[in-house]
Amino acid sequence: MKYNYRIILQYDGSKFNGWQKQGNTDETIQGILEKTIGSYLSEKIDLKASGRTDRGVHALGQAANFYTSKKIDAKEMKQWLNQTLPMSIRISAAEEVPLSFHSRKSAVKKTYVYCIWNSPEKNVFSYPYAVSVLEELDIEKMKQAANLLCGTHDYMGFSSIKETKKSTVRTIYQIQISKEQEQVKIAFTGNGFLYHMVRIMSGTLMEIGLGKRKPESVLSVLNQKKRSLAGPLAPAKGLMLESVEYDEKWTG
Amino acid sequence: MKYNYRIILQYDGSKFNGWQKQGNTDETIQGILEKTIGSYLSEKIDLKASGRTDRGVHALGQAANFYTSKKIDAKEMKQWLNQTLPMSIRISAAEEVPLSFHSRKSAVKKTYVYCIWNSPEKNVFSYPYAVSVLEELDIEKMKQAANLLCGTHDYMGFSSIKETKKSTVRTIYQIQISKEQEQVKIAFTGNGFLYHMVRIMSGTLMEIGLGKRKPESVLSVLNQKKRSLAGPLAPAKGLMLESVEYDEKWTG
Repeated sequence: MKYNYRIILQYDGSKFNGWQKQGNTDETIQGILEKTIGSYLSEKIDLKASGRTDRGVHALGQAANFYTSKKIDAKEMKQWLNQTLPMSIRISAAEEVPLSFHSRKSAVKKTYVYCIWNSPEKNVFSYPYAVSVLEELDIEKMKQAANLLCGTHDYMGFSSIKETKKSTVRTIYQIQISKEQEQVKIAFTGNGFLYHMVRIMSGTLMEIGLGKRKPESVLSVLNQKKRSLAGPLAPAKGLMLESVEYDEKWTG
Repeated sequence: MKYNYRIILQYDGSKFNGWQKQGNTDETIQGILEKTIGSYLSEKIDLKASGRTDRGVHALGQAANFYTSKKIDAKEMKQWLNQTLPMSIRISAAEEVPLSFHSRKSAVKKTYVYCIWNSPEKNVFSYPYAVSVLEELDIEKMKQAANLLCGTHDYMGFSSIKETKKSTVRTIYQIQISKEQEQVKIAFTGNGFLYHMVRIMSGTLMEIGLGKRKPESVLSVLNQKKRSLAGPLAPAKGLMLESVEYDEKWTG
């Protein structure tokens, strides 16, 4: 028999060397989780995430799944994992899912939030979780550009992909920009995102907020699909994978 | 000639071994600052804070002052310090003050905020900055007790002081309790606080919120001045020194 389990998890990206296992197992989120879950099951497992977050990127609602030959009590495993894992990784849910469930392929919606600390004074507490922008951002201009970025488009120009046979068309349902005191947040919700897409869109929106480029300039990136026309890759530490949504059929 | 300079600073208490210099200089906030400012001035200095925060306690608006024989440009020093200090310490202001200014004695008002993460699920991002309380707190009961704690009282029972000839009477102007989603904050504003006073009041208020004791029970702690009648010392990591206020005469 084979069983499929899904976990929903949070992690502080500043404490690890990214999601993907490589080199020292204890430095990557995947490495630590595979080792810990494997030790709970006394069985080697392969953990697949909804997306591999880069080094420095945080998660509040990452989803991942693994197959095992053992029928387990998911709640009991969740409790055991939270007692065993470092505090910078927390499992917020664990449940059995159908065998056909796949963390990445079954996802229908994802939300990423990019955080900016917008103040002439840097802040100790936001430092690992937000990029610091000293000059005041023009939020209205950023919102104009954000609206132009929504919809179904070929986002090739906003990605670090060199060449691919796969489709680079994605749908962004919403980009919400909010400002609360010094904290500016850009929340992107879409059916999927290309490699570096959220960080390059964030870097571009920041340049627009600083008056270095016009809101309409994002249209030429979409039309000409050239990476060189977009803004810089924003630092990883400002990025948070907020949530991954699945069809109801995947929930127990 | 002698000059007196005041700095306002933030620090992440989880990264240091408290304010007070001891043992390895590089592990305490005072130690690191005295060394760094001393190196800027090429002169040994003695840095006095408005209060020595315990190991693990954070600060958003700590104040400290030092004397030097050198007339300096405070803004330039601030900039240099922020380039030199670790990111977990930031100087948010620096200015010359009258020679009679004393960070602790001249303070007229202080605000401390105690942070609680109130949810059955722990949180990776609040973990170093808030204590986790799994059961739901009764905020109304906590507010009733908070009102009873305000005013001018002998707070001996809410402190870790064993015996003292000094007065243990203080005035608390306000205790504000707010809840925003999982985050509960208790903000204490007073003319001064005894050793461990904010953490013991926070521990007591949490017990009240959990229904382990009644709001009126704080009155017997005030009346009988017995530490054993109060609640436990709440963990240091939930505490933040928010601000220290001085009379206008101390500002340039």
